[in-house]
Amino acid sequence: MALLEHIDDPSQIRGYDVAQLRQLCSELRDYIVKCCSENPGHIGASLGAVEIAVALHKVFNTPADKIVWDVGHQAYAHKILTGRREAFRKNRKIDGISGFPRRDESPYDSFGTGHSSTSISAALGMAVASKLSGDKHHSIAVIGDGAMTGGLAFEGLNNAGALNADLLVILNDNQISIDRNTGALHKYLVRVATSRHYNNLKNKIWNRIGASRFRDFLQTMFRNAKHTVRKGDGSSSLFEALGMRYFGPIDGNDIEILTDTLVRLKEIPGPKLLHVITVKGKGYKPAEENQTIWHAPGKFDSRTGERTTSKKSVSKYQEVFGNTLLELARKNGTIVGITPAMASGCSMDIMMREMPERVFDVGIAEQHAVTFSAGLAADGLLPFCNIYSSFSQRAFDSIIHDVALQGLKVILCLDRGGIVGEDGATHHGAFDMAACRVIPNLTIAAPSDELELRNMMYSATLPQYRATIIRYPRGYGQGVKWKDESFTFIEEGRAVKVTDGEDVAVLSVGTVKHSVAEAVRKAGEKGKKVLHYDMRFVKPLDTDAVDYACSRTSRIITVEDGAVTGGLHAAVAEYVTGKGYNCTVTALGIPDRFVEQGTPEQLYAECGFSEEDILSAILS
Amino acid sequence: MALLEHIDDPSQIRGYDVAQLRQLCSELRDYIVKCCSENPGHIGASLGAVEIAVALHKVFNTPADKIVWDVGHQAYAHKILTGRREAFRKNRKIDGISGFPRRDESPYDSFGTGHSSTSISAALGMAVASKLSGDKHHSIAVIGDGAMTGGLAFEGLNNAGALNADLLVILNDNQISIDRNTGALHKYLVRVATSRHYNNLKNKIWNRIGASRFRDFLQTMFRNAKHTVRKGDGSSSLFEALGMRYFGPIDGNDIEILTDTLVRLKEIPGPKLLHVITVKGKGYKPAEENQTIWHAPGKFDSRTGERTTSKKSVSKYQEVFGNTLLELARKNGTIVGITPAMASGCSMDIMMREMPERVFDVGIAEQHAVTFSAGLAADGLLPFCNIYSSFSQRAFDSIIHDVALQGLKVILCLDRGGIVGEDGATHHGAFDMAACRVIPNLTIAAPSDELELRNMMYSATLPQYRATIIRYPRGYGQGVKWKDESFTFIEEGRAVKVTDGEDVAVLSVGTVKHSVAEAVRKAGEKGKKVLHYDMRFVKPLDTDAVDYACSRTSRIITVEDGAVTGGLHAAVAEYVTGKGYNCTVTALGIPDRFVEQGTPEQLYAECGFSEEDILSAILS
Repeated sequence: MALLEHIDDPSQIRGYDVAQLRQLCSELRDYIVKCCSENPGHIGASLGAVEIAVALHKVFNTPADKIVWDVGHQAYAHKILTGRREAFRKNRKIDGISGFPRRDESPYDSFGTGHSSTSISAALGMAVASKLSGDKHHSIAVIGDGAMTGGLAFEGLNNAGALNADLLVILNDNQISIDRNTGALHKYLVRVATSRHYNNLKNKIWNRIGASRFRDFLQTMFRNAKHTVRKGDGSSSLFEALGMRYFGPIDGNDIEILTDTLVRLKEIPGPKLLHVITVKGKGYKPAEENQTIWHAPGKFDSRTGERTTSKKSVSKYQEVFGNTLLELARKNGTIVGITPAMASGCSMDIMMREMPERVFDVGIAEQHAVTFSAGLAADGLLPFCNIYSSFSQRAFDSIIHDVALQGLKVILCLDRGGIVGEDGATHHGAFDMAACRVIPNLTIAAPSDELELRNMMYSATLPQYRATIIRYPRGYGQGVKWKDESFTFIEEGRAVKVTDGEDVAVLSVGTVKHSVAEAVRKAGEKGKKVLHYDMRFVKPLDTDAVDYACSRTSRIITVEDGAVTGGLHAAVAEYVTGKGYNCTVTALGIPDRFVEQGTPEQLYAECGFSEEDILSAILS
Repeated sequence: MALLEHIDDPSQIRGYDVAQLRQLCSELRDYIVKCCSENPGHIGASLGAVEIAVALHKVFNTPADKIVWDVGHQAYAHKILTGRREAFRKNRKIDGISGFPRRDESPYDSFGTGHSSTSISAALGMAVASKLSGDKHHSIAVIGDGAMTGGLAFEGLNNAGALNADLLVILNDNQISIDRNTGALHKYLVRVATSRHYNNLKNKIWNRIGASRFRDFLQTMFRNAKHTVRKGDGSSSLFEALGMRYFGPIDGNDIEILTDTLVRLKEIPGPKLLHVITVKGKGYKPAEENQTIWHAPGKFDSRTGERTTSKKSVSKYQEVFGNTLLELARKNGTIVGITPAMASGCSMDIMMREMPERVFDVGIAEQHAVTFSAGLAADGLLPFCNIYSSFSQRAFDSIIHDVALQGLKVILCLDRGGIVGEDGATHHGAFDMAACRVIPNLTIAAPSDELELRNMMYSATLPQYRATIIRYPRGYGQGVKWKDESFTFIEEGRAVKVTDGEDVAVLSVGTVKHSVAEAVRKAGEKGKKVLHYDMRFVKPLDTDAVDYACSRTSRIITVEDGAVTGGLHAAVAEYVTGKGYNCTVTALGIPDRFVEQGTPEQLYAECGFSEEDILSAILS
């Protein structure tokens, strides 16, 4: 009898025996693979964490007990078990559920996630609240080994180890984040996982003594643990040095070991960490075999594992970045590349393959990526540091304090700027231009196409440029020819006049130039003469262009794929009111609210800066 | 013969013998105490680090070898030794040197600091650059045990332990940051420092065997260390787990042990950490005895240690915060307090003394402070999280991703908003309002006096308010009566009309209200009728007030003790251009550049928003 199709509430699985739990895990895997083959998602991490989700809901009294899923894209089984089985078919759709836990989506999602390394801090807050309010419940953070390298996770551990709250951290160690994990912590965990202790537990003890005697073994181990800090064999020393009781490592894809362990851990008070080893993509062979590609593979044939690759002739912006960086690095020996765990995501792996000694994957650590870059610059190198726009919010102080204030020439390339689509509210690169515009001594550029990205990267390396942010969107470019083109210098802060006219002026920045140009063309057919500038920079602002616009018309429209509050809109408004120009500035872009998931086109329309919206604004 | 007065360059001390080094340390202490007694500074940390500075310049070939001083206020001896002995008399003055290392001040300041926990990342950058460029030099980070809890430091360690660069981290463990240190790392370091190993080294070996045989001991220890990873007694396991070779702990106030150790460490390649124990305030009895007060004691009599306390009848804003928080917490059992290592600095210690179980000093960890607060809020508590404005830049993503996006009610009180004075560029709270204004679903308030701060704190606790930032300045209030006043509700986003008029409108936010009011009074004497609004909120903006202003006059002046780019100025400009009002908006506030040290009054004038500047703007 199929189990999953009857489960609307995790309390239904609490009476399951091991055989039923195994079957449920298997059905969950099939369902995740089937749904994701038709409707793309983060399949790899979620397949690896199926047993963790099932075991937690089996052992703990959710939603009274709180689970915080770090990053959150591994929580598909959790979502499916907690009343969202059918809704999961519309995972990441505009009219569907989010691909990440959301407090407003389900009481089982005790904390919203999306960015990494927040879970220990959040779950510690809940553990402390439980203690203070007397409303006793368990608090559990499930965090990957990749997310554990983020400084915020360490800050949380350091605090948790000192407070005597009942926090359980499950370290889900699959030894890969998106790219292969890196850093000292990773090496440490590998040593632990390959140590005598783990192999004993997994192979000898389990296989030789069998399930029932293994339970006795666990019982003894945990009974002792209640009274004494475990000495261990040194492998657990890192976490125990930080005041966490350490348990493990155990096989996190074995539902029986996992539930047995959790039942016992539930009784142990104080801060504790359970180290589980899982396989990313577990149970689906293609995903197990190529974990980086199957992190989020897009559509695929669930039976053959063949991915539906759209054979576009157009390049992605990240490819323009990756290839241009290599080209520049070949010519200039001082150029180095820095990425916080996104070498393939931002295509810095292209340079990494040819000159591995000049590319640094620093792990999930955005602050360090920027401050480390500043240190490289302070000693004469020219660092290109690439961070996804929304993750760069983590490095805000590093950009201010270590780069701009010191006048250190770091070139920050922010990939995934603007609306990113299906990953939704936590992942849109909405705030980069607006927030960074407040920082003195920093240039902010947004190319309108592939060639402009290439030329901005080149120009930023020249002495005329100070520390510079270049932000560009996720996904495919405009199809502009850029490969093998010669480099052209772009003057810092200089706009380009696209069309002239006197009925209305449109000032755009970034790739929205193209929908603006199309809208301007259509408006022209209706007799409207439009002045259109591709501003290219929100800082410094090309005030000559704005002066010209104000001399031609009293109606200005700003268009940006970014927050209008504080963004290009604000830059133009500040300038025209300062000069006392008598004009109206209409702002099109991301409005002052959080934008949920959907396709980029759906979201442009929802935000009101689709081509049609721009055309209506011009005509109105 | 006095030594210090002849030293203009640290190369002069490289030939010194131990007796001379001891004398130099003593002279440096006297000089620091003398200068700081007349011209206040961060005396405690700098007295504790005198031997570290002397030993580093004795052993290493500075400035070719790079020293990064984490936080930097412990670097006075370093500054005095590197050509700034006389300049140090004007430490932190507008026409003097910075209280922190600055790249533009001296080639010996290889990296600017001010905020904590950056040194490992920056020095690692330099170590990697040295390796890549072949320009061989040593790279040294000097970091306190307090700064070590910041997540950025951990990210740096994690990366350093994996790269094979020649980095030396000196962990300056004085077991106190500003307030007594807290957290699991602290407990760990105390265990290490009180372990058999350290006591052996310090007491038995050193005292019993004497200096020359101790040198033999060290030589053996380091010779072995070159070839094997030290097993140790478990005390070093935390750092060794992270791939750092661990040495120590040794007495960091003993110049002989310290120089001997550094000479040997210099020869050991790869990433390594030397743990030194120092005493904050070392050598000056009053400072040793009360380390929190003597972190930055203000003026004092250097002979008696008596502090020149200005007996003002006026309260500091932080006292208003601290007392009001306690009052609110007494009435509302869900209120909790969170501070990242600034319990006394923000006066949360007032609540901590009465209800220690409801106040959490989480250590230097601004991101965690905010995300932990969000976790507390998610489970039904009402957290007041207090962070110094400029340090809150570290928590920018946590404010977006964990607070505003999730609609979790956290009340963020940002102390030290606006110009802070002598601490200079790294410490001014310039960007809080401008940067956070881009975040949706967040209220930003700035009280104009003590009573308004009190009432905003009260109002923010009520259900009418969402997540809210309340920012207020460093130092003394206006002298407004606030104690024992009843609480008055302030409507979210509602301005107050101070005066009416039609010649010009001044919209101010925060405590600059008072200089505006005075300027308006003086302008009135010259016949100018000025409309003045205390906006109180930069978000949501009181658009009724702006509408009214635009109906009365076409000249608007915005005044704010914060960055005008993106700040209140931008909010007003966005609105008036959106409405198409024909008016000029003149922005007074912190301009688009980094502002250096000086008294607040000097800096208001330098930035152009002193009372005189406001008056001229009104009259012009």
